[in-house]
Amino acid sequence: MQITATGYTIYFEEGRFSLLKAFLSEQVFSSIFILCDTNTKKECLPIFLKKIPKLKNTAIITIPAGEKHKNLHSVEMIWGFLTQHQADKQSLLLSLGGGVVSDIGGFAAATYKRGMSVVHIPTTLLAMADASVGGKNGINFKTYKNHIGTITQPLAVFIYKPFLKTLPPRELKNGFAEILKAALIADASLCKKIYAEKKASYTSHIVRAVSIKNAIVQSDLLEHHARKVLNVGHTVGHAIESYFMYKKKYLLHGEAVAIGICVELCLGKNKGITQAKTAMDAVLWIKKQYTLLRFSKKEIECLIELMQQDKKNKGGRYCFSLLKKTGQALIDIPATDSEIRNAFLLYNNIAHG
Amino acid sequence: MQITATGYTIYFEEGRFSLLKAFLSEQVFSSIFILCDTNTKKECLPIFLKKIPKLKNTAIITIPAGEKHKNLHSVEMIWGFLTQHQADKQSLLLSLGGGVVSDIGGFAAATYKRGMSVVHIPTTLLAMADASVGGKNGINFKTYKNHIGTITQPLAVFIYKPFLKTLPPRELKNGFAEILKAALIADASLCKKIYAEKKASYTSHIVRAVSIKNAIVQSDLLEHHARKVLNVGHTVGHAIESYFMYKKKYLLHGEAVAIGICVELCLGKNKGITQAKTAMDAVLWIKKQYTLLRFSKKEIECLIELMQQDKKNKGGRYCFSLLKKTGQALIDIPATDSEIRNAFLLYNNIAHG
Repeated sequence: MQITATGYTIYFEEGRFSLLKAFLSEQVFSSIFILCDTNTKKECLPIFLKKIPKLKNTAIITIPAGEKHKNLHSVEMIWGFLTQHQADKQSLLLSLGGGVVSDIGGFAAATYKRGMSVVHIPTTLLAMADASVGGKNGINFKTYKNHIGTITQPLAVFIYKPFLKTLPPRELKNGFAEILKAALIADASLCKKIYAEKKASYTSHIVRAVSIKNAIVQSDLLEHHARKVLNVGHTVGHAIESYFMYKKKYLLHGEAVAIGICVELCLGKNKGITQAKTAMDAVLWIKKQYTLLRFSKKEIECLIELMQQDKKNKGGRYCFSLLKKTGQALIDIPATDSEIRNAFLLYNNIAHG
Repeated sequence: MQITATGYTIYFEEGRFSLLKAFLSEQVFSSIFILCDTNTKKECLPIFLKKIPKLKNTAIITIPAGEKHKNLHSVEMIWGFLTQHQADKQSLLLSLGGGVVSDIGGFAAATYKRGMSVVHIPTTLLAMADASVGGKNGINFKTYKNHIGTITQPLAVFIYKPFLKTLPPRELKNGFAEILKAALIADASLCKKIYAEKKASYTSHIVRAVSIKNAIVQSDLLEHHARKVLNVGHTVGHAIESYFMYKKKYLLHGEAVAIGICVELCLGKNKGITQAKTAMDAVLWIKKQYTLLRFSKKEIECLIELMQQDKKNKGGRYCFSLLKKTGQALIDIPATDSEIRNAFLLYNNIAHG
């Protein structure tokens, strides 16, 4: 099973990593490096190397796990390691990890000697369904999410679902937020299916989510227009994630995006853009699955402040991607501070009303 | 006068910056930033702002001048400034300076919020004839030249020759090395003309050098094959530049490349690749114009060590771009440590024999 993307292929492995093995034997690389974080080194690397014994003497680069370490310091560490081990432009970096690993690894590879190849092997649901598709990479800068990066496509992506067994339930829910988002912006029937499931089946819709994202990315590789629909829930979501990044209450990306979707649905509803039923169906379902935090007035002002650095903004004006109805989103919707404030207040009411 | 490049245009200004003025009035940017170094802020910015009064309230980002500051620290400073001043993806960075400024500015812009626009206004001969064309950007990392960077094309380049009047003679000679290289790899008649000039005319051949480089870049934007001819003189040149970067004897890029051309001509001649007359004509001309340093055995070993990080290398093997004859170069020529050592010894003899 495979999905063709722009200039590369997303492969779904069936158990023995035969697709990756074939890929590696067809290509000539002057050297190969595996990038892990401290979690995937322990949980996934032994499985991976057992499946592909040929790679067992490959140099391993390990970065500390977690969003907190998605910074320039980790990238410098990777550049230093590659330099020391004489990686060249014909070398390959295999990123084995979640979205943080593929984002950092993708950025390090895109900029090392002006570009070496990277192949992503996502190990979390979030990375499988979202982060490893589309070529966006990046790191956080100061308190801003993915503020520095490039859009550079990988050489290939290999998705191996059994890695999901290494994850705690919280991580599956984390990734599912992006699957729900994909359904909300482009597939009303998938939404209906998700809402109807008695017990949420977090790992069933990966292929569909990848297909949706891939089709959107292919229509607008560099995010000049259509691709922005993928940002539904993310303007608010990224601000929330940034806000809590250095706090005790540490939120995962998907947990922040789930809340972001709810707040942005409230914004869309208030502005008369989002159908009331669309907003209500989604928020009620999310409320059952995720912890919807309540935000104080002070917190709301901080979040609005953080949104001023959102990458979609134009000339100091917020630009949202908002749902019109289930399965369809609109882009470049401006909003004022006061509209965003009111959206948070409506969200607070619905979430805790 | 203008030259069409891939996705952008290189304009030659006639005096009043009318082409840049027209360009700025046709495009919509949410904000504009001017990047200078401490030299161009003093020497060029006042001239520039006098010509384009519309830009006189533009925010100025100033980085310290010199190759020593072509590092991540300067890039972080620019990212920080852009963030603080709420630059977004629709903002424009105008780089006003030599190759160091356009390389750093190009990299900062290519990675800020995953890419904002950059326009280069080269102020040195080196930048006009070479650095501002082709989209290569980058910074030095540890002791390695341009080790980190991307290939990202600018939105436009504006060449205004009167800026050359602000330069000391050493800077003109510095830039001329790249013009000579362009002639050597692609234009035998320009070479003949240069060799025949009684007094070298450093600033006469800018348009021709830009045309040569642009034609080569267009045939191979991402440097997979043909573009590598532009690296003639640079494998050795970069190593020399890196070696002296932190020493008292500080060499400019073109000064190092002039020596690099001579050493690589010796290498090519020894290997039976470069015609003897081609090598002799070029080395003798360069010897009249540039200071050809003599290298000790220890220095030669250090330089060979530095070449191990050259970006053209494949699987630990040096890959040179060498002249076949005047006006024609070959790429991907392997060489051994011992061949490089012998080339340096021949160079030492010719330069100081």
